[in-house]
Amino acid sequence: MELDVILTHQSLPKNFEGAVCAVVDVLRATTTIITALANGASEVQPCIDAEEARQKARGTSDKPFLLGGEIKGLRVPGFDLGNSPVEYLDSSLISGKVIYFSTTNGTSAIRRAYIGSHNPVYIAALVNLSAVSSALLKATTDNSASTILLLCAGRRGGPSLEDLFCNGLILQKLIQELNQAGIPHKLHDGAAIAMEFSSLKKGQPLDVLKATEPGQGLQELGFADDLELASQIDKYQTVPIFDGTKITAA
Amino acid sequence: MELDVILTHQSLPKNFEGAVCAVVDVLRATTTIITALANGASEVQPCIDAEEARQKARGTSDKPFLLGGEIKGLRVPGFDLGNSPVEYLDSSLISGKVIYFSTTNGTSAIRRAYIGSHNPVYIAALVNLSAVSSALLKATTDNSASTILLLCAGRRGGPSLEDLFCNGLILQKLIQELNQAGIPHKLHDGAAIAMEFSSLKKGQPLDVLKATEPGQGLQELGFADDLELASQIDKYQTVPIFDGTKITAA
Repeated sequence: MELDVILTHQSLPKNFEGAVCAVVDVLRATTTIITALANGASEVQPCIDAEEARQKARGTSDKPFLLGGEIKGLRVPGFDLGNSPVEYLDSSLISGKVIYFSTTNGTSAIRRAYIGSHNPVYIAALVNLSAVSSALLKATTDNSASTILLLCAGRRGGPSLEDLFCNGLILQKLIQELNQAGIPHKLHDGAAIAMEFSSLKKGQPLDVLKATEPGQGLQELGFADDLELASQIDKYQTVPIFDGTKITAA
Repeated sequence: MELDVILTHQSLPKNFEGAVCAVVDVLRATTTIITALANGASEVQPCIDAEEARQKARGTSDKPFLLGGEIKGLRVPGFDLGNSPVEYLDSSLISGKVIYFSTTNGTSAIRRAYIGSHNPVYIAALVNLSAVSSALLKATTDNSASTILLLCAGRRGGPSLEDLFCNGLILQKLIQELNQAGIPHKLHDGAAIAMEFSSLKKGQPLDVLKATEPGQGLQELGFADDLELASQIDKYQTVPIFDGTKITAA
């Protein structure tokens, strides 16, 4: 099994057909999507920007929906919810709703990672680490895939430390399971960087999140609770999958 | 002082005017350029591809020159030299020559990093680690710059482990000197990744190079000596600078 970590969604290889792919944006898009689905949202539709989210919502006739997302970290004006995962914990508000969801990096990364119906995109974060790792391995068997690509959403074309950390921990899980099954693996350089980094910081997820640039920014904006939630490894068993239009729980 | 490491040349920020910038391609372009200048080459002209190198050479009337560079790791057909730094050790061959030099990643990264005469581009590798670190700090003073950008050449849009390692060691030198001078510093996330990675592997440069994907490829192609040379920290005091046309020793 070949394992690679792509450090920014802009550097996705041109052709990765046949690979099983997961997108990670710990702060905060994928954490928020997992939280929304774990609390009963019927689906999340990742949108490129706020305008696309509004357009899709206008085209919705029968299903109850909410508009969610951020611009520069704050709720889009006129939207029901921001990109704070703690806002999606209230299942009385979230349950049964379609969420039209737009963020700066995460939703674009998810859309970009989708290349066709043979390549469903898994949504991963620290909060569903073990569940998504098992699902990825199962998908390689189901799809006869020989590569797992873990994608960091990144920021402004640069790397995102917290996503690298999360992907390193996912790799550790994958390798453990591959070893148990007697399946050999090959780490590409991006994966080697993620492994080294996560080994060094294992057991300190909250410290890692607090030390990153967005982690510092979120604390300044009053979102310290988001870091607490996002750092909770295996809080959920939910494995969201994007089919090109909507993200639903597997 | 703000310190950042850019993981691939494709993810260089759009605007970094006012920053002091260094490009690292340990395997092998920047190692080879430093070696060529240390052994007496009068200048190295980084070319986007072999055809540009040939064109520039045809336009040269009086100066003695050599054509150097690689395609897929091997010497370009018809060129005098490849991209193997050990080929540039023979000062009787190299001395006084202009080298028209074309490689897959490194020369493009150098060209891309040049944005104008106020932003000379420093050429760095393990072989000139301390000398280039000191030169970068001096340049921030001379140019009243508040940012140092260290650029990994990368590979096919992905990261290059050996360049991340080298940049982490450069950062360690920079921070040591900044601390001694009482100048505060801020590490951006790319720099934090490089620092962590290089701390973990400090003292093992040859092992790092051997473990990378190009390191393995070069050993298979018979270039094991290149890894030995490229791993020699501070072998040279040469600090090459690119002025937009040519690279010369400072």
